[in-house]
Amino acid sequence: MAAGADPIGSVRIGVDIGGTKCLGVAIDPAGNVLATEQRPTRQAFDELVAVVADIVVPLDSAIGADAVRDDRPAVGVGLPGLIDPDGRMHATPHLADPESGPIDARRILEETLQRRVVVDNDATCAATAESQIGAGRGIDNMIMITLGSGIGGAVILDGKLRRGEHGFAGEFGHMLVDPDGPRCPCGRRGCWERYASGQGLRALARAAAEAGSLDDILAAAGHDPGGVTGEAIEAAARAGDQGAIGVLDEFADWIAVGLSNLTNAFDPRAFVLGGGLADMEDLLGAAIRRHLSDRLYSARLRPHPEIRFAALRRQAGAVGAAFITSAR
Amino acid sequence: MAAGADPIGSVRIGVDIGGTKCLGVAIDPAGNVLATEQRPTRQAFDELVAVVADIVVPLDSAIGADAVRDDRPAVGVGLPGLIDPDGRMHATPHLADPESGPIDARRILEETLQRRVVVDNDATCAATAESQIGAGRGIDNMIMITLGSGIGGAVILDGKLRRGEHGFAGEFGHMLVDPDGPRCPCGRRGCWERYASGQGLRALARAAAEAGSLDDILAAAGHDPGGVTGEAIEAAARAGDQGAIGVLDEFADWIAVGLSNLTNAFDPRAFVLGGGLADMEDLLGAAIRRHLSDRLYSARLRPHPEIRFAALRRQAGAVGAAFITSAR
Repeated sequence: MAAGADPIGSVRIGVDIGGTKCLGVAIDPAGNVLATEQRPTRQAFDELVAVVADIVVPLDSAIGADAVRDDRPAVGVGLPGLIDPDGRMHATPHLADPESGPIDARRILEETLQRRVVVDNDATCAATAESQIGAGRGIDNMIMITLGSGIGGAVILDGKLRRGEHGFAGEFGHMLVDPDGPRCPCGRRGCWERYASGQGLRALARAAAEAGSLDDILAAAGHDPGGVTGEAIEAAARAGDQGAIGVLDEFADWIAVGLSNLTNAFDPRAFVLGGGLADMEDLLGAAIRRHLSDRLYSARLRPHPEIRFAALRRQAGAVGAAFITSAR
Repeated sequence: MAAGADPIGSVRIGVDIGGTKCLGVAIDPAGNVLATEQRPTRQAFDELVAVVADIVVPLDSAIGADAVRDDRPAVGVGLPGLIDPDGRMHATPHLADPESGPIDARRILEETLQRRVVVDNDATCAATAESQIGAGRGIDNMIMITLGSGIGGAVILDGKLRRGEHGFAGEFGHMLVDPDGPRCPCGRRGCWERYASGQGLRALARAAAEAGSLDDILAAAGHDPGGVTGEAIEAAARAGDQGAIGVLDEFADWIAVGLSNLTNAFDPRAFVLGGGLADMEDLLGAAIRRHLSDRLYSARLRPHPEIRFAALRRQAGAVGAAFITSAR
């Protein structure tokens, strides 16, 4: 796929590292996607670097970039977890945590990819894209939430990304919402991510299956509650299965718990929900809005935040990762 | 008390409306307190307006302001709850909530006090004072928490107050931290304020008394667990009572729960703790820091936020209320 009238020099590549999948895109200056590549995520950082290279090389070819002409486009990479302004990774719950001090992700990727690389938090990338060309355009106070394997977040207040003192703001997935809740891989209990992420949906589905409210789905999973997936719940809910619809309603309520807490903290005009689960807008949107209205502090006496879904859908993180190559 | 070398015109008055007490101060331009007045809080708004007048009139006299010369100082008032940028009160959990639309607090107070009045959220006032002349000086990313009857909060990011879309950011007291927790006057369950405020301390003390770990204190309260106050716990802890020290340790942990959630959200350099309970810095400071270290997401891999206590102590809100008269 060629870049059309754009010179190669204005094409950029973004790679979004998710909990299970890594998505790469090449975009033109307007953010139009020219080519995509996807690979499974690997846990160890050196293997992950190889995955990024496996994504970037075919994207180079797809847009006609040429190492000999030295016009390889800059690459932005969105990583989950705590990423500092120098592109060093301090902690990352779904990959292997650094053992001894932060990993200098930007430098390692630049050496491997032989070009300029910019690294940022994955949800910050998604917020950048949605705020510039997506569901957050023109919104000065917006909270981005990425609902994938885990939960990511980013904060836009008074028209600008607010990163906090070390660049680590927006780690909403690890807000405690239940002191007696299930263990989280982060080592604590009852994090929001245990309920309102892809992993959370699966746990809710398993509990419903064990409680006997998902008999057809459970049979299809070979009578193993642990084998009931979020995808199975989604498909069954679309087919009208009341048990599956009930699981999604409970899931929407857990999403609303966190959005209510974040409304108290930030008073945003809008939440923009992205990540893989945002594909279920038709199944979740109305329920999230209803539960948020029930849970909001002083709901009767205040304007309610809007719930929007990422206009760029699953590509928001990757497109935003490409955007940040020119933002710095 | 006279304003010394300062012309009356540069003296300002601030009034902080707390859950149980209202404190007024007159300050010089540097924020030095020239005079104070305190009255009990009243629940109905018209009675509260009379309380504010009861505070302001003697402060006028104390600083030598004169209605005939028409040099009455401007008054700032800090109110708990949701206050919009026009000084209208939308919701206020510890006073009587507005029945039909917001109360135009600023206008009503101006008519009663016959002078310019500025109204803002009480914790926002405290943050203004601490950030300008207190524990938050020079800190660009700071979260103010007022621990009084309830919990108030305010957000400073990138060197400025961040109020959100409607001015309602920082209502941390009503973050859900336990879906099965006790009922809150706001109508929901398990708000942080049920555990980490003055009311929360009293509830923890009552539970400990019922569990039999506060026998001496319980005897002093006439064997009524409901009669065990936060003040009794504080006094007993200072005297070395292990049961009381245990209650304060549990209380400190609940404070840390919220601070950990807010660290995930905002990544502040420092929390500044104010309100009446901040007087217990010597009893609570070390325990809060220790519990926060245990509860922080990726504690090993990141800098920890500082825990500071309001330099202006209980006066932070009133001094800040006086400050905001020139901020707008």
